[in-house]
Amino acid sequence: MRVGGVHRRTIWDEGGEVRILDQTRLPDTLEVVTLDSPEAAATAIRTMQVRGAPLIGATAAYGLALAARRNPSDKALEAAGSLLLATRPTAVNLRWAVDRCLGALLEHPESDRAAAALELARALCEEDVEMNRRIGEHAWGILEARARAVGAGPDTGRPLRVLTHCNAGWLATVDVGTATAGIYRGHDTGFPLHVWVDETRPRGQGARLTAWELAQHGVPHTVIPDVAAGHLMATGRVDLVLVGTDRTTAGGDVVNKIGTYGVALAARDAGVPFWVAAPGPSLDFSLREGREAPIEERSPEEVTWVEGAREEGGRARVRVVSRDSPAANFAFDVTPARLVTGIVTERGPVDATAEALARLYPERVGTR
Amino acid sequence: MRVGGVHRRTIWDEGGEVRILDQTRLPDTLEVVTLDSPEAAATAIRTMQVRGAPLIGATAAYGLALAARRNPSDKALEAAGSLLLATRPTAVNLRWAVDRCLGALLEHPESDRAAAALELARALCEEDVEMNRRIGEHAWGILEARARAVGAGPDTGRPLRVLTHCNAGWLATVDVGTATAGIYRGHDTGFPLHVWVDETRPRGQGARLTAWELAQHGVPHTVIPDVAAGHLMATGRVDLVLVGTDRTTAGGDVVNKIGTYGVALAARDAGVPFWVAAPGPSLDFSLREGREAPIEERSPEEVTWVEGAREEGGRARVRVVSRDSPAANFAFDVTPARLVTGIVTERGPVDATAEALARLYPERVGTR
Repeated sequence: MRVGGVHRRTIWDEGGEVRILDQTRLPDTLEVVTLDSPEAAATAIRTMQVRGAPLIGATAAYGLALAARRNPSDKALEAAGSLLLATRPTAVNLRWAVDRCLGALLEHPESDRAAAALELARALCEEDVEMNRRIGEHAWGILEARARAVGAGPDTGRPLRVLTHCNAGWLATVDVGTATAGIYRGHDTGFPLHVWVDETRPRGQGARLTAWELAQHGVPHTVIPDVAAGHLMATGRVDLVLVGTDRTTAGGDVVNKIGTYGVALAARDAGVPFWVAAPGPSLDFSLREGREAPIEERSPEEVTWVEGAREEGGRARVRVVSRDSPAANFAFDVTPARLVTGIVTERGPVDATAEALARLYPERVGTR
Repeated sequence: MRVGGVHRRTIWDEGGEVRILDQTRLPDTLEVVTLDSPEAAATAIRTMQVRGAPLIGATAAYGLALAARRNPSDKALEAAGSLLLATRPTAVNLRWAVDRCLGALLEHPESDRAAAALELARALCEEDVEMNRRIGEHAWGILEARARAVGAGPDTGRPLRVLTHCNAGWLATVDVGTATAGIYRGHDTGFPLHVWVDETRPRGQGARLTAWELAQHGVPHTVIPDVAAGHLMATGRVDLVLVGTDRTTAGGDVVNKIGTYGVALAARDAGVPFWVAAPGPSLDFSLREGREAPIEERSPEEVTWVEGAREEGGRARVRVVSRDSPAANFAFDVTPARLVTGIVTERGPVDATAEALARLYPERVGTR
């Protein structure tokens, strides 16, 4: 992704250190943070300095590399794996990355593990970028077809209007993004696109992160409160919905940021196609239905307090809920497969059905 | 409504002056503001120091009283009426109140108009309270029936779980509230109730106002981000939805705070009854369909900036949307009649159909 004209990734290593962009400081400050231990990696995931299913997986892989550098024993690596796994329960990429890297590492003699772990993390990152690139190719095909159907394109000058929820962008991955991959691809060819960006309360990943990265890339967009998505669709202002996923089950149920289900219901009611960008590691073939997935509950303080930049400079935190009122903070919801038009994977688009998913990923059936 | 144990209304007159509670200062400060001119009344409506369809109507009636006291000529009163009507386009009570009071006033000789206008405003307020009391009776019947169906009540100790959006409470009316009327009534009999309060972005009327008034009245409740309503319903945590309305059409389409449509879609998908509390003046028999109603668009700043109380005291305003990103702010949406289980009016519950509404309000058919 270009940031201020310079190409960047969200996570990388240099001189033996792991670097991330602190996403809790965006969009106001672009701050690079160094992770020097598996504990630091776990904290970065838990506090959402990094977030987004693919990037959580990449950070966990680097967390294991930091652990292997400090102490390559089986016991130390397994402890680091458990620590990383405990950070966030919903995204399945986290378990995928830890299981895969830890399994491979334990095959190596201890003396090789530090170097091997770093290579594994790097390989996982490259794989993420390549998967997203392919998702972008397939997603752009879907967007183009929809544009033809609604008369959008360079000929008419009428933009294709895509709505997205949360951030399944560059910032949720190592690079490129999942839901945004096709959008960036289309935009780069000069195709007119406009993105409606759901704010995504309580943490505002849409308003803070997706809006910021679309602006950096020059893609026209408008932020809306989450409550407005239904009205926009009902009044014919949205051509297609495209979101990411933290975990999609073998049956095609989509676990994603809280509010995704509501977007899908509105899309269905208005006849707007609802697409999900899902890299392979976010598919969980061990679960048939979304209701089996753990739904993370986070601190109510994320609902009752809002932080942001002050007009006069600096930051402040303000209370937006009546002082003596409790709040609840469910982080994800389940969009049942029946509301999903299709899923875009690195292997191509696929129906949200057990049969179609099993056909596309035959080697994964019954596994995590 | 009780506030700190004392009974209050949201608008009243004393010693020739009109007083309101400044709702933009709630929940942090309970501040009484004096309105001394129709311009002040119009500003209070426009800036949402008062809001909620019934209270907007009452404030407009008092605005005409303030105009009549200053200058009782036809021309001055008509100008005041136009000024008040221009403040907010969606709530139909505003037009109802202005048309009714202005029409009656112009029948009086100029010398009587100041006194007559004050009496008209007071009568409109009493009527609002009485209508809400009756809505409360009927709504409580609906809540009780639902409680029986789901096994909630004092016998089982299991609370009836109601979800509401925005503020259709005491603060949206002169007193009692519309959607809250039945809740307060049930709570006062000792019936166990729990209210899920949608935050209601962008202005947070749920988190700031509904939560505050439920706490003042001692009704158990939990604030949730708007995005969570669907998840709560899909996971069986909501027994009934009860919301207010700014304008309900002859065909039963419900124009209400943006996001209501999404709540209704989720309720339908989960089989949760979706009820609307609608006093007669919020029914617009001149419109058949909701899409004919004007939808107010407010400043994008209400989306991009959030104001609240700081932990260390005082208030601050913080930016929650990426600096260079535009935002849109539609204030209302339309819930089609097909998604509405029923409408509770002061005359009783009624199906959301043209036939049923016309039967209940035969004298209103074809009128505003």
